[in-house]
Amino acid sequence: MSPAKAQRRRTPEPQEESAEESPPSTATLAEIARAAGVSAPTVSKVLNGRADVAAATRTRVEELLLHHGYRRRRTEASRSPLIDLVFHELESAWAMEVIRGVENVARQEGLSVVLSESDGQLTPGQTWLDRVLARRPHGVILVLSGLDPAQRAQLASRDIPFVVMDPAGDPGDEVPSVGATNWQGGLAATRHLVELGHRRIGVIGGPPRMMCSRARIDGYRAALEAAGVPVDPGLIREGDFHHEAGYEVGRELLRLPDRPTAVFTGNDLQALGLYEAARELGLRVPEDVSVLGFDDLPLTRWVSPPLTTVRQPLAQMAEAAARMVLDLGRGERPAATRIELATSLVVRGSTAPLEEA
Amino acid sequence: MSPAKAQRRRTPEPQEESAEESPPSTATLAEIARAAGVSAPTVSKVLNGRADVAAATRTRVEELLLHHGYRRRRTEASRSPLIDLVFHELESAWAMEVIRGVENVARQEGLSVVLSESDGQLTPGQTWLDRVLARRPHGVILVLSGLDPAQRAQLASRDIPFVVMDPAGDPGDEVPSVGATNWQGGLAATRHLVELGHRRIGVIGGPPRMMCSRARIDGYRAALEAAGVPVDPGLIREGDFHHEAGYEVGRELLRLPDRPTAVFTGNDLQALGLYEAARELGLRVPEDVSVLGFDDLPLTRWVSPPLTTVRQPLAQMAEAAARMVLDLGRGERPAATRIELATSLVVRGSTAPLEEA
Repeated sequence: MSPAKAQRRRTPEPQEESAEESPPSTATLAEIARAAGVSAPTVSKVLNGRADVAAATRTRVEELLLHHGYRRRRTEASRSPLIDLVFHELESAWAMEVIRGVENVARQEGLSVVLSESDGQLTPGQTWLDRVLARRPHGVILVLSGLDPAQRAQLASRDIPFVVMDPAGDPGDEVPSVGATNWQGGLAATRHLVELGHRRIGVIGGPPRMMCSRARIDGYRAALEAAGVPVDPGLIREGDFHHEAGYEVGRELLRLPDRPTAVFTGNDLQALGLYEAARELGLRVPEDVSVLGFDDLPLTRWVSPPLTTVRQPLAQMAEAAARMVLDLGRGERPAATRIELATSLVVRGSTAPLEEA
Repeated sequence: MSPAKAQRRRTPEPQEESAEESPPSTATLAEIARAAGVSAPTVSKVLNGRADVAAATRTRVEELLLHHGYRRRRTEASRSPLIDLVFHELESAWAMEVIRGVENVARQEGLSVVLSESDGQLTPGQTWLDRVLARRPHGVILVLSGLDPAQRAQLASRDIPFVVMDPAGDPGDEVPSVGATNWQGGLAATRHLVELGHRRIGVIGGPPRMMCSRARIDGYRAALEAAGVPVDPGLIREGDFHHEAGYEVGRELLRLPDRPTAVFTGNDLQALGLYEAARELGLRVPEDVSVLGFDDLPLTRWVSPPLTTVRQPLAQMAEAAARMVLDLGRGERPAATRIELATSLVVRGSTAPLEEA
């Protein structure tokens, strides 16, 4: 080997990867090429997410990569110094907390964050995936969203690790994820209201497809049952985690003939919607209705009355997800690949003892 | 020229750029190399932001690039499909609006957004710049921050355009920028308060180094002077655009023996801080003190009372900045490279006529 070539091996080209990089991959890549009836550089192009491959060829090669469980061993240096962060919805202070957490870790590690939004879809599209394959980040963090099995296989074959933060569905045991103890949070919230003497306690969930929302409502039920308070299905309502749903659904609840004296609103934005509904109906918070949120966004301290809520450590969850994905990328198996960080009750001014009539 | 080579020219390599791409650049690049006493590939490495160049060599080459006004003509295809977006501070719903605007344009154009935070510094550091040079985005959007002349020259020599959104300082005529009509906004806000009968009107600015804050305060003065209301320097205070400053400075203003009956708080977060100070002092908004913000963040509609504020179209400003930087990257000269989008007064519940005592 010439000195120049040896040098080149020590400092691999960061921008383009050839088919001839390390012996184990080369062998498998050549096999894939033979099976697909294409050249090794064509397989390499598919792996690199290049656009200049015919769609049919691409599909055939992808299928073979998947079938053979091809997995490229990638060195740190051959990756772009990027972390991909994907939201299904880029909105509200909630997303900001997550971005800050990932940004913190990225800065410490000399990486930059690429931000995407999957247009409200819980599974990002192929366009997004193609771009990720082309830019070869150190890892991908999916917030609330998940990947279908074929997408997972495409990332795996390029040795691009991914972690799901706060999984919306049940991603399965093999998918690394970071969440919060949503069930515990729902339990603590409802127990707090029960301890204040409330019996008619309403709850507004998020979209039912989201596991975090189901877990919070299950925690609510568990607290009521533990306290011997009957669960009234008419007080359990569905929302969408936005302010408007808190307002609309909150108005329905507060207009019931036997209205709840307290509402666990599922998240902070819905709590603010409920504040508005209460104001409109001439009900005071907390004198006439206690309100309890979830998330502990900064703005909950600034509203009037300041909101009692369940804190979920969003920035720390995002940091943990970023650390996990980088560990995976270094070939380290993290101690746990399914983590739930603890939630905690933060009592402020929006909850009060039930006043005896 | 062989057909293969001709083909290669038509579809330039997206990942790596060589020194031999187009005649005018090649000539200049070779000259730079000769003057620096290095090889053309070394100059190319410096241009590509590669780390494997000795620091001294790098400095010498950079100086020569700057001195000769070297400017690489880059084709669209040779850039990474990225837009860089840099905040000096990644916080609050304000940043979220900007991110959404840039993300919208990026998605339409098939680009991804790389997000960075310059750690509170108004000029991003060299580490950040090196990464930008290495990843070769279609353009850079700096939010509130600016670049020093050497940094501008480094971007210019790589043909990476940049736009400043809502410039903090006065970036100079040659720097493309998108802002809002801050002076008009301060004028409209203060005029609204004057028309409600207020005469003792306080104002809380942002950091004095920020031009947007100065412009708002100048608009405030202009409205008072136009109405023949004397300007009391004791009612003009400095903040930092965060909630805490609104609370602290607001408390000072509201504790004055001859306290203001209305406060223009400079931005929405400071308005919420003033809400808190007023609550603590037992003053009602708007009955005892009218409060007027700036920005129109979503949360201003959810607080109680809903905040009267000056809307600045943050998402549209970000979209305009993204469009401008992409136009510049295509070699198109936009119709205007210094744009200010209009602000507008949004009257809600936090301002009321001065009640006669």
